[in-house]
Formats: sequence, C-alpha cells, structure tokens
Amino acid sequence: MKITLQHRLTAEFIGTFWLVFGGCGAAVFAAGFPQLGIGFLGVSFAFGLTVLTMAYAVGHISGGHFNPAVTLGLWAAGRCANGHVIPYIIVQVAGAIVASAALWAIASGKPDWVPGGFASNGFGALSPGGYSMTACFLAELILTFIFLMIITGTTSKGAAVGFAGIPIGLALTLIHLISIPITNTSVNPARSTAPALFAGGEYVGQLWLFWLAPIAGALIAGVVARALYEAPES
Amino acid sequence: MKITLQHRLTAEFIGTFWLVFGGCGAAVFAAGFPQLGIGFLGVSFAFGLTVLTMAYAVGHISGGHFNPAVTLGLWAAGRCANGHVIPYIIVQVAGAIVASAALWAIASGKPDWVPGGFASNGFGALSPGGYSMTACFLAELILTFIFLMIITGTTSKGAAVGFAGIPIGLALTLIHLISIPITNTSVNPARSTAPALFAGGEYVGQLWLFWLAPIAGALIAGVVARALYEAPES
Amino acid sequence: MKITLQHRLTAEFIGTFWLVFGGCGAAVFAAGFPQLGIGFLGVSFAFGLTVLTMAYAVGHISGGHFNPAVTLGLWAAGRCANGHVIPYIIVQVAGAIVASAALWAIASGKPDWVPGGFASNGFGALSPGGYSMTACFLAELILTFIFLMIITGTTSKGAAVGFAGIPIGLALTLIHLISIPITNTSVNPARSTAPALFAGGEYVGQLWLFWLAPIAGALIAGVVARALYEAPES
Amino acid sequence: MKITLQHRLTAEFIGTFWLVFGGCGAAVFAAGFPQLGIGFLGVSFAFGLTVLTMAYAVGHISGGHFNPAVTLGLWAAGRCANGHVIPYIIVQVAGAIVASAALWAIASGKPDWVPGGFASNGFGALSPGGYSMTACFLAELILTFIFLMIITGTTSKGAAVGFAGIPIGLALTLIHLISIPITNTSVNPARSTAPALFAGGEYVGQLWLFWLAPIAGALIAGVVARALYEAPES
Repeated sequence: MKITLQHRLTAEFIGTFWLVFGGCGAAVFAAGFPQLGIGFLGVSFAFGLTVLTMAYAVGHISGGHFNPAVTLGLWAAGRCANGHVIPYIIVQVAGAIVASAALWAIASGKPDWVPGGFASNGFGALSPGGYSMTACFLAELILTFIFLMIITGTTSKGAAVGFAGIPIGLALTLIHLISIPITNTSVNPARSTAPALFAGGEYVGQLWLFWLAPIAGALIAGVVARALYEAPES
Repeated sequence: MKITLQHRLTAEFIGTFWLVFGGCGAAVFAAGFPQLGIGFLGVSFAFGLTVLTMAYAVGHISGGHFNPAVTLGLWAAGRCANGHVIPYIIVQVAGAIVASAALWAIASGKPDWVPGGFASNGFGALSPGGYSMTACFLAELILTFIFLMIITGTTSKGAAVGFAGIPIGLALTLIHLISIPITNTSVNPARSTAPALFAGGEYVGQLWLFWLAPIAGALIAGVVARALYEAPES
Repeated sequence: MKITLQHRLTAEFIGTFWLVFGGCGAAVFAAGFPQLGIGFLGVSFAFGLTVLTMAYAVGHISGGHFNPAVTLGLWAAGRCANGHVIPYIIVQVAGAIVASAALWAIASGKPDWVPGGFASNGFGALSPGGYSMTACFLAELILTFIFLMIITGTTSKGAAVGFAGIPIGLALTLIHLISIPITNTSVNPARSTAPALFAGGEYVGQLWLFWLAPIAGALIAGVVARALYEAPES
Repeated sequence: MKITLQHRLTAEFIGTFWLVFGGCGAAVFAAGFPQLGIGFLGVSFAFGLTVLTMAYAVGHISGGHFNPAVTLGLWAAGRCANGHVIPYIIVQVAGAIVASAALWAIASGKPDWVPGGFASNGFGALSPGGYSMTACFLAELILTFIFLMIITGTTSKGAAVGFAGIPIGLALTLIHLISIPITNTSVNPARSTAPALFAGGEYVGQLWLFWLAPIAGALIAGVVARALYEAPES
C-alpha cells in the first residue's frame, strides 16, 4: 500500500506518544521507588528504548523522528521534505501532550501522589543538579548536535543497512546517562513541552531554552552532515 | 522439515515457560537481594530478554507469541490463523504454570523463604505502589496496545528484516521499566495467571483485570495495525 | 585461509579466557565497590557480554562454545564433530584457569584484598542465598537446558542469519539475572572449575555438581533440539 | 562522494570527542548523583555506547577507531594505512581535549562543583580501588589486547557483516564493568590524556602508563590477529 501523509502523521503521533509515555513514565513511576527503583540509569534506558522500538515499528513509514529538533535537523540536512516539517512538528507535540495526560491520569490513581516537576526539563533552580542556564544551554546544544550527527550518519549511504534504529535509540540512552543531572535531558522540544504544561509555573517559563538549544544544535548538525555524509538513496 | 502444529505448540510452551521462569524468577530470587540485588531495572531486563532470546530461538517456528494477548492481537491484525488461537493460548498458560511450579520448587530450597506475592500482578492493595484499579486497567491497556503496535510494526512489510526480535524484546523491558510499580507489569495473561495460582487468595481474585485489559489493548492494536501497516509476505 | 583445529582451539582458549576474566573479574573487582558498585546486574551483563563479543569475534572460527556443556550439548544435537569434543573441553578449561590466574595477579595488587570465594560457584552453605543442593542442581539443569535450546534454535535453519550472537550472549546475562543468588551461576563447568581451584577448600569439593547438572541439561537439550529444529546447512 | 583524508579526520575527531564527552561526562555528571546516580554500571554503558553509536555513524568513513591504541593495533594487524596512523592519533587527542574542555565548561556551571580527578585514569594512590602500578599495567595490557582481538575478529572475513559495531561497543562497556575500580579504565591513551590535562598534578605524571600499556596490548593483538583471522576484503 502507498504511504500517505496520514500514515506518516499517525506514525509520528504514536511514536512521540510512546517517547513521552515511556520515558517520562519511567521517571515518574519508577525512578525513585523505594529500595528497588530504576534510578537515572533505568530512565536512560527507557527513553532510548522508546526510540529504538518505534524506529523499527514505524520508521519505515514516517522516518521515525518523534522530535521537532530531529525533523528540523533532517530538513537542514536535505533529508526531510519541506511540506512535512510543520505537520510533523504539530503531531509530535500533540502526541506528547496526550502522553502526559495519560501519565497524569494514571499517576493520580496513587493516593499519596505529589506531581512535583512531573519529569519536566529545567535549568538553574529547576535543574536537577542546579546547573546554570549557560551550562544547560551548552549541554542541550552539544547533545542534540551529536544526536543528529548519529541519526544522519547511521542512515547515510555506506552505513550498515537495517541497523540504524539500534545506535539511534541507544544514543538517546547515552544522552540521558550524561545529562539527566543537568537539564533532566531534553534534546526534544515536544518532550519538554508536554510535561511542563502539566507541571505549570516556571517550568513553562523555561520552555524557550528547550526549543532553542536543541533546534540550534540540530540545524548545525544538518549543515555538517551535508559535508560529511552522502545522503541515502531514496 | 515441515513445521507442524506440534512443533509450534512445543515452541510456544518452551517460550512461555522461559518468559515466566526468567522474568518472575529474576524478581523472586534476585530483585531484593541485600546490597547487590538487581532491582526493578534488572527484572525489566530479565522479562525483555526472555522474549528477545526466544524470538530468535523459536520465532521462526511458532511466530514467538508466548502471550495470549499477543496471539489475540495478531489474530485481530489478520496475522494468526483461526485454528492456532485456542491451542496457542492453552499451551502458553500450561508453560507458564510449569514455570511457576519450577520456581516454587527452587525457591522453597532456601530455608527462610517467604513466598509473598510470588511475583504476581495486582491492583489497589496488591499494586506495588498502591495504584487504583482504574489506573492499573488504563496502564495495562495502553501498554499492551503499544506492545502490539511494535510487534505488528516491526514484522510488517518494509520493516528491516531479521531485527524484530530486538525491538520486541526490549519493548517488554521498557514496559516493565514503566509499570512494575503500578501492576507489577502483566501485559500477558499467562504470565499473570501462573504465579497467582501459587500465591492464591486475592491474587486469583484480581486475575480478571490481567486478562481483560491486555486483551482489550491488543485487540484495538490489531485493528489499528490493519490500517497502518502492510502485512508481511508469508 | 583454511580453518585448522589449531585455529579453533586458539579461538576457544581466548573466548573462554575472556568469559572468566570478564565475568568473574567484574564480580571480583566491581560488584561490591562502595556506593558505585555494579551489583549482580552489572555482573550479569559482564558475563553475557563476554559471550556476545566473542561470538562475533571468533564464532566463525570455532563455533564459539567457550563452555564444555555447550560443546557436549551441540555434540548431542549433532552439531559438533566427535573429534572436536575433547580438545575443545581441554582448552576451555585451560583458558579459564589462565584467566583466573590473571585475575588473581591483578586482585592481589590491592593491598587489603581478601580472596573470599573468588567468584566461585557453590550450593548449600556456599550458595550466595543459602539454597539447598537440590534447588541448585535443579536451577543449573533447567538453565543450561534452556541455554542450549536458545543456542541451537538461534543457529538453526530458518532463524535470522547473523543475529545469533546477540540472543546467545544476552541469554547468559538473563541466566545470571535469575540465578546469581542461587549458585552464583555456572551453566559452564570450565567457568566453575577455574576460580574454585584458586579459592580451594569446599569450593573444589562442590565442583561435581557444576559439571553434572549443566552437562545433563545440555545433553537433554541436544536431544530435544534434534526434534524441534532443523540443523543449519554447513 | 569520495572519502578524503579530511572526511576521515573529521569523523575521528567527532567520534573521539563523543567518546570522552559521553563517557567521562556520564562519570562526572551522573555517576555519584545522590540516590539516583548511575554508578559504575551506567558509566560502563556510557563509554560503550559512545563507540557503538559512532561506529555506525562514521565507521564507514574512518573505520571508527577513536583511540590511538586501536589505530596502532589495526596498523600492526595490517588493516590501517601507514599514512593514516599519525594524523588519526593527532585528531583523536585533539577531539578528546576539546571534549574535556566542553565538560569543564558545563561542570563549572554547577555552583558547588569540585573537579577532583575529573574522570582521569590513575594507578596506585590514584587508582579508585588502590590497585598497584603493576596490577594496573597488567589490567590495561590484557584488556586492550582482548579489545583489539574483538575489533579485528568482528571485522574479519567470515564474521557476520554489519554487526561489528554492536560487539565492539559493548566490549568497551564490558571492559569498564571489569576495570573502573582498577584504573578508572583507559584502554585508550586519548581518553586518558584529555581529562588529566585538566585535572593536572600527578594525573599527568601517570599518563605514561596509559599510553604504554594499551599500545603494548594492542600491538600484540595485531600480531595475533594476523595469524588467527583473515583480513576483510576492502
């Protein structure tokens, strides 16, 4: 059957839903469970595995972006059609918001639940480790730059065919292993936006950084990728 | 050699045995070991790796379901023959029960052993984190829905050939990373039934939810998969 | 170049050296490090990754057994030449002993080091969790049986080509996630023998179980594999 | 497009940048975070995943060394052109230093930050577990030897095509699971040099070991690989 834009948008919606439901869900439900909790290591695997699993499930339909910064970085690399950029970003944000709503519905079924930051990203006073705005901006910029270099490289001509979902997913795990203490790890504006809308307050006020820094890093990577990698045959 | 129904049922029996022996076994023996225990993170990997390993070992014989909800979801997606559904489910439950019996035999070889919930699933008072029945139902429904979207997607036409066992197995790991605190994670009625029969009491009384919610999620996914994915050539 | 028996034995020596150096080394050096130690989860990954890495490095030379029980199980399944069985087992044990010697040399470079069990296997009083001899025998038998079902299944005709090293290696991780508390996990007589020779005392006296139970489980699996799987074309 | 030396050096620079930024970054930012920190297990995955991800992203451009010992080991195995050795090593060290500078810039954005060893390698008094110089030398020699045996084996003729990045990356994870307590794990002179330049003092004075031992192990492996493996067709 022919892959239509509707197929693509459904795939991006489900994929981004899963990224936020799985990654933020592991953080909200399981990271700090007494004695047996999964900690930052478990949350890092959770985020990475959302992408690894969905890359293989729907990557052949939509490309498997699940992230506005990835969509824009691939566009800058000449790998995403102009007409896909805005619709992709809209459904990514929508999928993320629906995921946060579902997480809220489940989490509030625990009698003594306190929402807290609800797995939102933050800098300065809202950084898990108290890192400054500049440090957080730099971290998000560098990490998204490398994330896109990995995405464009593993799918470039000459790279091993079929494997890309593994390094791309595990790159997101690695990014979390590095930076949860810094910003709670974004590299994905849709993932940042959804929980912040539920956590409210200053978390919303800090969202600009989690759009600006990842997108800047992704756009730079798109340009470098054009020089370093050969585009795949489509 | 020709693959007969007996080959298929043997494969499903062994696979589901391994899912319960490995996943519930890791929980019973190793999760809470003093100082060095594997915690929920280790249990999550254990469950996922049972499926990853058996998908590659016997997936080419039976399809590698190991789970009544998966069998029914694939049937709804048009990917499982009518005549296979009931026999598959019977041997899955049988394999799970034999696994729980083997776990009981080993666990009772520890002088001071207290069975407790024996890795059973539960909601409300039996939820590890005390989540309500509604929250548990919703979590099981959503997680099984996504699990089946990953299973049907990674094995659909256009997906990378040979890789499916990796995202499918690791999807089960991810599902556990999210939801052990909620229901102790089922998404698999056979996995729920076997330990509950040994734990007894209210664990048996709650089994209905762990048949109903996963199967409902799986059937919905089967319908969505028909619209989103192209079936593989058989 | 033609693969000679010497190539094969070199590969098995290096592979079994790595299994013991890596797996037991992680246990001896890193499992219980204060605050930051890797615990049973890290040791489980270490053992599994020794096999995953060596399966891809030398599996195409020797078949990648690294384990007398695997060699005997594959022989029972009709997948290992008669003339290879004894030489393989000899170099596997030799590689394991050299690895334990190297570990001892390094470990004794820590001023306050106490050898303890030196990552040996044990039952009863020497079981990490105090499991009885019967429980330990049953666990080793079942786990080695399944290990061989995975090894023979993932390399059988119809299984995805090239992937087997991943499920086989991660099966060993999973086996450790389940059973470190029971026997410290053997499923491999060579791995059991080497550290026991250095730990001495009762650890040597218990070695019979870690030859008998894994080999029994492997031989049963070899017979079942003949009925369930089609041998690969060689 | 034709792969030029500049493409290769860019790839090695980015890859080694990522190895140090990701691996040492996880150690500096996240290993010891209160309650939820990733510990040595998380740092081990971080280092391994830097190589796994970059091997698939840029391995088809530069070969994916990211490590002077790997470059020299492959040269000894007859797999690296003479003219590439020195330029590769220079950009690897440069990439590592830039990574450490970036880590310093981010880490110093945390008000109460104390640099400490800054994830440097060390022996004797600077060994995390207090291991002697001899023990540390032996560990680095053996581990780099095996690392190169895995690298050359997984990319030799007859090995499964496309998979090498997985065992090579996870080999580095495994090496860290074993030896963080011993030397903080080097097996890579570029990775050792960069943080030591920032940590200063005795860390610089000990750098000789982390050039000598890994390179010796790698060169020995190169010679053994010539005898054991058949070179891939280029």
